Amino acid sequence: MTDTTTDLAGMAERAAWPRGSGDGHEAAEVLAAARACVDPELRRAIDSLPGSLRRVARYHFGWEHADGSPAAGNAGKAIRPALVLAAVRALGGEPAVAVRAAAAVELVHNFTLLHDDVIDRDTTRRHRPTAWTVFGDADAILVGDALQALGQRLLAEDPHPGAPAAAARLARCVVELCAGQQADLALERRGPEEVTLDECLAMAEAKTGALLGCACALGALYAGGTPEEVDALDGFGREAGLAFQLIDDVIGIWGDPGHTGKPAGADLAARKKSLPVVAALASATPAATELAGLYGGPPAESEAELERAAHLVERAGGRDWAQVHAADRMSRAVGQLARAVPDPEAAGGLLALAEFVTRRTH
Amino acid sequence: MTDTTTDLAGMAERAAWPRGSGDGHEAAEVLAAARACVDPELRRAIDSLPGSLRRVARYHFGWEHADGSPAAGNAGKAIRPALVLAAVRALGGEPAVAVRAAAAVELVHNFTLLHDDVIDRDTTRRHRPTAWTVFGDADAILVGDALQALGQRLLAEDPHPGAPAAAARLARCVVELCAGQQADLALERRGPEEVTLDECLAMAEAKTGALLGCACALGALYAGGTPEEVDALDGFGREAGLAFQLIDDVIGIWGDPGHTGKPAGADLAARKKSLPVVAALASATPAATELAGLYGGPPAESEAELERAAHLVERAGGRDWAQVHAADRMSRAVGQLARAVPDPEAAGGLLALAEFVTRRTH
Repeated sequence: MTDTTTDLAGMAERAAWPRGSGDGHEAAEVLAAARACVDPELRRAIDSLPGSLRRVARYHFGWEHADGSPAAGNAGKAIRPALVLAAVRALGGEPAVAVRAAAAVELVHNFTLLHDDVIDRDTTRRHRPTAWTVFGDADAILVGDALQALGQRLLAEDPHPGAPAAAARLARCVVELCAGQQADLALERRGPEEVTLDECLAMAEAKTGALLGCACALGALYAGGTPEEVDALDGFGREAGLAFQLIDDVIGIWGDPGHTGKPAGADLAARKKSLPVVAALASATPAATELAGLYGGPPAESEAELERAAHLVERAGGRDWAQVHAADRMSRAVGQLARAVPDPEAAGGLLALAEFVTRRTH
Repeated sequence: MTDTTTDLAGMAERAAWPRGSGDGHEAAEVLAAARACVDPELRRAIDSLPGSLRRVARYHFGWEHADGSPAAGNAGKAIRPALVLAAVRALGGEPAVAVRAAAAVELVHNFTLLHDDVIDRDTTRRHRPTAWTVFGDADAILVGDALQALGQRLLAEDPHPGAPAAAARLARCVVELCAGQQADLALERRGPEEVTLDECLAMAEAKTGALLGCACALGALYAGGTPEEVDALDGFGREAGLAFQLIDDVIGIWGDPGHTGKPAGADLAARKKSLPVVAALASATPAATELAGLYGGPPAESEAELERAAHLVERAGGRDWAQVHAADRMSRAVGQLARAVPDPEAAGGLLALAEFVTRRTH
């Protein structure tokens, strides 16, 4: 095990981890460096799976086509592993020590994607058919189960003194992610006027904020941080995660010119009770009443109806609320970060990633 | 954490862990003592879940009815936790130190039951409707995910020096269980003459033997056993698990007078490629040819056809093969056990459990 760690440290050095240049390219550099560190660990973990599970996992990660031939690979931006490594560095540690923890977080993230896609019957992920549509529900469920186990195995086999606390924290986070997904399904089943904003914010924190917070907390644990530093970095990730979700919900209604490919109105067409919609519904305005009527009906089909719905959310104050609330969450995130990492130079990598996920920089 | 451990040790003392009396009641005593030790830990773990996940988990364990009212509880025999604790004692350790590990194994076992029931569309478990039929697929999948995480959390939070190796071993076992379930589904999809006995034995080892072996191995790790002792106890559990599966398959065809409630012919009616059937099909006898013809057709409906199929499996030697092979596996299990625990008195608890699961004693 010691040999492997040394080897990884060497790899990380060769990958030239960026040391906080502060310019606009920083997030891209931090992400690329994290990917270069974590990818080999992730591929080694997936390659340890028995063949039939490995095949589905390699498809899900975008490394193989459905027929098993190699693919160029689009395994997502790997924000979460980058947060783990950036958090280590923010507290003065050497990112390479936490490569297994970073891979573990990414494995857990992908286990939840596989299961959520089965549960939500989502057919597309990262511009490709989801695993369950290609291999069936059983394989997608079982490979998800195996990825959770792999993530925990990486931590259990890691001799780093931060590993046991990281494993416990990641396991608690998985429970929170499951509760968040369950709450999301329960909220979607309820009528548009039976859902409160507080419930939706709590759900978004569990479903999105928890794992971003956990990623940062794991980095802090691997850097030997104090409990206060670990909690502050968890808070930073959670608040940034909420800001990300709010911006993502705004994009799901009004669109994002060219960045995500998510078409404007997609969430409205699906009658999704996203945060700006729920804020609009709670506004007690005439626009809210009309919006509730629309959301109580069948899914929108005409372009005109989608435009009308978007207009109503805006008139009821949903867009402004989401933007102000996202800014507030980002400012809370920065506050938490400053609590643990007062030196702006050291905090640079984490801040760049938070700004990247909330689409302030690209 | 130290306080909790002390408390559990005290509880185990009060539960009067049986010290290998050697008489016929031993397995029942070992199981009852294990349940008394592990149940409070298991209930505490489940009670730590958020409400909506907890409700489904408490239903699954038989502690609550679907409406949330308390139920008498039939959470199964808890063979696996009993194996963990009996393995600790076999190597001279104090069973109470491994209560969290025993609960972790039981949580993992129940996670696989929840997911397997969703995947197999099984509607009954422990004489009650399965969780997915009551709460839906999504809740059953998510609660299964949470139980896997809980199991790993118990080990990650356990300060015992055996815990990290136990966590890694349990995670590797989960991957094996997933591969076993996947192989089972793949074998059931293939034609009756396209399946080899070796494939079926490998599948049964992964699906049934692996977790019984892992339970024993975890006990050995908590007793501070050598790698050789840990591997031998894993081998003991695996071989006993195979023997159990063979006997269970015989019962699925010819029935078990009064013990399991599984009706004679159940596996034949479902055209299940159980081990005696596959052994019969591989026999190159006229009975095998007729059996293959039956299995190639639609599921059996008449009593006469089921009787004919059972008769053909017997005539082709499937019943004899299964019984001889089960005895062989039990003798290999005993050999592995003797390798790690030469003192028969110390080995008594594990042996009694192995005989219990293979239905030699009740």
